[in-house]
Amino acid sequence: MITASLWWHPGQGQGLEKLFRYARRMRNGGIRPNAAMSWAREGPATALLDAGKGLGYVAARRAMDRAIEIAKQSGIAMVAVRHSNHFGIAGYHAKRAADAGLIGIAMTNAGAEMAPWGATRPILGTNPWGIAVPRGGHHPIILDMALTQSGKGMMRWLDRAGLPMPDTWALTADGARTTDPGAAMDGPLLPIGDYKGYGLSLITDALTGVLTGSLFGAQVFQDDENYDVAHTMIAIRIEAFIARRRFDERLEALIADVLTAPPIDPDGPVQLPGQAEQERARWRLEHGIPVDGTTVAGLRDLARELGVPFALEPVA
Amino acid sequence: MITASLWWHPGQGQGLEKLFRYARRMRNGGIRPNAAMSWAREGPATALLDAGKGLGYVAARRAMDRAIEIAKQSGIAMVAVRHSNHFGIAGYHAKRAADAGLIGIAMTNAGAEMAPWGATRPILGTNPWGIAVPRGGHHPIILDMALTQSGKGMMRWLDRAGLPMPDTWALTADGARTTDPGAAMDGPLLPIGDYKGYGLSLITDALTGVLTGSLFGAQVFQDDENYDVAHTMIAIRIEAFIARRRFDERLEALIADVLTAPPIDPDGPVQLPGQAEQERARWRLEHGIPVDGTTVAGLRDLARELGVPFALEPVA
Repeated sequence: MITASLWWHPGQGQGLEKLFRYARRMRNGGIRPNAAMSWAREGPATALLDAGKGLGYVAARRAMDRAIEIAKQSGIAMVAVRHSNHFGIAGYHAKRAADAGLIGIAMTNAGAEMAPWGATRPILGTNPWGIAVPRGGHHPIILDMALTQSGKGMMRWLDRAGLPMPDTWALTADGARTTDPGAAMDGPLLPIGDYKGYGLSLITDALTGVLTGSLFGAQVFQDDENYDVAHTMIAIRIEAFIARRRFDERLEALIADVLTAPPIDPDGPVQLPGQAEQERARWRLEHGIPVDGTTVAGLRDLARELGVPFALEPVA
Repeated sequence: MITASLWWHPGQGQGLEKLFRYARRMRNGGIRPNAAMSWAREGPATALLDAGKGLGYVAARRAMDRAIEIAKQSGIAMVAVRHSNHFGIAGYHAKRAADAGLIGIAMTNAGAEMAPWGATRPILGTNPWGIAVPRGGHHPIILDMALTQSGKGMMRWLDRAGLPMPDTWALTADGARTTDPGAAMDGPLLPIGDYKGYGLSLITDALTGVLTGSLFGAQVFQDDENYDVAHTMIAIRIEAFIARRRFDERLEALIADVLTAPPIDPDGPVQLPGQAEQERARWRLEHGIPVDGTTVAGLRDLARELGVPFALEPVA
């Protein structure tokens, strides 16, 4: 969660603010903090983890670590997780693989917010993907993305600021295009690439919820005592295909071409996926993570309730 | 290629029309019709095929068939292809896996038509993906998509018809938005989901061109004697995670929810990925594939040049 706070814009709804939701879910039994997790199935290059309603971050990390371990032997591995919870940021889990020198893919299903293309009723989740590719001597490429153009967190943030949104983000509940984030708060989010993102979201649910025996479609995250989220992690060993040094040299050549492409806006240079997050993280590691007063008050209340020490150092 | 003609709208540039390009590439040595293909690397769940400049369709099919064979043992397999050519439609290769009861993913790099997000110079390809998920007793779900909103073929088709395009498809060479397909013919195609599709395209090139030792980025498809395209195929065995019958039941439940979502346009019901292509194919298998006069004349010329019999049956 600290990683999410370091990487993300607060409007994107990840980070420390999620702690209150996790705490609420622990109280109502949807998340079991000390769940016994167990391996439900194991194959030569696959495994299935039963998270036993435990924390999604913990289960997904365990799954990716197992995928890395298997892929080091087999070249590619896929480890799925059933009966889990919100796994946080997909890019965090993908980065585990890149940090170990492998290519990592992490995906999850999520509460229904996207309608099938051409429909109004949300049936599918934003079903985010994280993909991380290691670089020699540099921070990995990290793509962390929902399969929708944007999310409700970002829309709420614009709505509070009185700002419009692009009309490609979400529809009204009746299925009309709008630039008013407030008007679309009860409507479906729009997928990336129109029907393409809808197809990707449907297939992501097939690869997570349907494949693992967890909930899927509009059922995920509906029952406060049983969120039953599913994730899928894939790790790929580069050396199964090419020498690592050659891969690194070739990837840097591609990156150099990408980064030197002439920008449309001279003040807006081309960036790699994950670069903005890394620059934000570097700044925040030095200067701190900005936290608003409401969040601070909430953290103090939560600490008091749980009997955990809480102290704020004044900003110098 | 017949499958592509059965599935696709002619503006999408797949199908029989590709035959002329393939013939030209065979003449200039870029495609070797009888190339000796060989396994460059083999691991427990991976393999790398050297296509030896052979036909992309042939190489990709061979790779997916090998991925299916390995995944039946290991649960998941990845087979990559180097030194290949245009592999046709990604969905065709993914469908091979679904027809064998596995989930299939096919991807390729391609000639540079997409600029990095915020830039004007095309460095990355449309890098299409095909993903196929088998269904019990039904045609599989087949997502076949470029990572751009649309393609130059479709833009040319609209341009000839004097029709506008959405301003999300492509930019002018200077990086300006436009609805005039002719004005964007020399500009970059726009990715799905803005920077998300750019990230997916960059990572697809890392997983194909960079990883296999083929060309990547702006170099692919530039040298008429050496196109050097790369593909990656992944096959996933459902039974490594769940009993096939249970998967089928669950997937049908999800599909039923998707297809019964209230449509925005009462005359435009919700469809599954690949459904329109399958309906087109069913019609064309019965009534024939419409081919325009220019294509017919071209086929006749090509047949004469190669000494191959060519006869047209009159349409009843």
